[in-house]
Amino acid sequence: MKTYLECLPCFLSQALRAGRIAMRDERAIKRLLDEVGMMLRDIPLESTPPESGRLIYQKVSEMTGNPDPYREIKQESTRAALARYSGLKEWVSRSEDPLLAAVRVAIAGNVIDFGANRDVRLAEEIEEVLEKDFAVCDDTRFRDGLRKAPEVLYIGDNAGECVFDRILIETMGKPVTYVVRGRPIINDATREDAVAAGIDRVASLMSSGTDAPGTILHTCSREFLRVYRQAPFIISKGQGNYEALSNEPRPIFFLLKVKCGVIARDMGLREGDILLKGPS
Amino acid sequence: MKTYLECLPCFLSQALRAGRIAMRDERAIKRLLDEVGMMLRDIPLESTPPESGRLIYQKVSEMTGNPDPYREIKQESTRAALARYSGLKEWVSRSEDPLLAAVRVAIAGNVIDFGANRDVRLAEEIEEVLEKDFAVCDDTRFRDGLRKAPEVLYIGDNAGECVFDRILIETMGKPVTYVVRGRPIINDATREDAVAAGIDRVASLMSSGTDAPGTILHTCSREFLRVYRQAPFIISKGQGNYEALSNEPRPIFFLLKVKCGVIARDMGLREGDILLKGPS
Repeated sequence: MKTYLECLPCFLSQALRAGRIAMRDERAIKRLLDEVGMMLRDIPLESTPPESGRLIYQKVSEMTGNPDPYREIKQESTRAALARYSGLKEWVSRSEDPLLAAVRVAIAGNVIDFGANRDVRLAEEIEEVLEKDFAVCDDTRFRDGLRKAPEVLYIGDNAGECVFDRILIETMGKPVTYVVRGRPIINDATREDAVAAGIDRVASLMSSGTDAPGTILHTCSREFLRVYRQAPFIISKGQGNYEALSNEPRPIFFLLKVKCGVIARDMGLREGDILLKGPS
Repeated sequence: MKTYLECLPCFLSQALRAGRIAMRDERAIKRLLDEVGMMLRDIPLESTPPESGRLIYQKVSEMTGNPDPYREIKQESTRAALARYSGLKEWVSRSEDPLLAAVRVAIAGNVIDFGANRDVRLAEEIEEVLEKDFAVCDDTRFRDGLRKAPEVLYIGDNAGECVFDRILIETMGKPVTYVVRGRPIINDATREDAVAAGIDRVASLMSSGTDAPGTILHTCSREFLRVYRQAPFIISKGQGNYEALSNEPRPIFFLLKVKCGVIARDMGLREGDILLKGPS
């Protein structure tokens, strides 16, 4: 997905949010926003939003001197998600269609996102996703593909959300390689966050090598690219991965909640819509 | 009121909205946003938001080659407001307290604002304001001040809104000088818009001389400043004028709807609140 003009003010808002998390001094945050403002001219509309997000959060890290300003927030998200693990497991197992229920749970976990969302009223938003109709639901193709695939490449998104992914992984009952970012970026899941969520107990962990808030292939490691190109069945979580991979000719199923008007317009959907969208 | 960090992404959003109105070419709008991005470092947090808005909309005019991109929108706003004139007049005259009802009408007109609001669902928002409780209602002081004042200086805000102001002017029954901006800026009312609304039939018109979206005194004409400094009773409409005049030691009554989180925080109120706020 390309960068839309509406993404530019949003980049500035994101820098402000990250700046407020990493710094106390208003003047220092102002200087950060000044710098990000000057970076906008170097952001071509042809690049994907996570490519630009990567540059902006690099600037945040550089100016705050903090390579991982969201660390505590991520730990808190994981704790909050773990507290809901048993309840959601039970909800899935009691469901008439546990696989689709677990897909819903994984999408519900996607509400944890400090890049796109300001306030996350976790409990409320999770309930909403669990009960919402799918705007796109390629579940037949998903079941088919999953049944035939010997293994699953599962590209994770945010910390905390990993706990919800774990429930889908456990429900699918297939060997899974779970992909995390190569370095901290916003609240995206790194190896540390996946381990804290217990993913290492149910899947192999692999880093994509990227330092971007989305799986931008040219920033990924060779090792990841080799695995990605051979993967028979891929699950991609969240907006950042969608933005980076939406034009890829691979067997990717995108699980996400539409969190901003720009993506909604790009997909012909509405903000708040939830999707299980297969390869086109 | 000072500029908050949250105003900076908003300035960029405003430039985008104005760019979309004035230009078709995405590349040209991108160049505008690049320029505005680079201007952010020259915006001190000590300046008021309309001072910065002024610089940004100057850039919009410069880059679009259009000194008045909102002209048609303003004309459309005036037409839409005039269509509601008789109905609102009747509502005021039937009201138990016509003066406070007319104050409500004037505040309701303030929902017409393409600077702060994206979509204006006019009819719906007007109804809402007419029925809403005041968050601040210094109506006793307002009545007192108005009764004693030989004349009123009424500082207008947006085109279209003028029609609603006219109803308050007609209800107050005092000689009124109605102040418009000196040059087109966003959808703010100029002399042309006030005349289209029929204000010239019920009040004297005067330009403040400013080219800012708010009455920033150092950008106003000497003639206006002379009148302003002697005015015994002043009505100030809308956020832009509030932002510019909130710290002024003058007998100003602010009539506005709080349209953004930043002003809400600054005033200790909530977005959507309506106010008739006297001098402190």
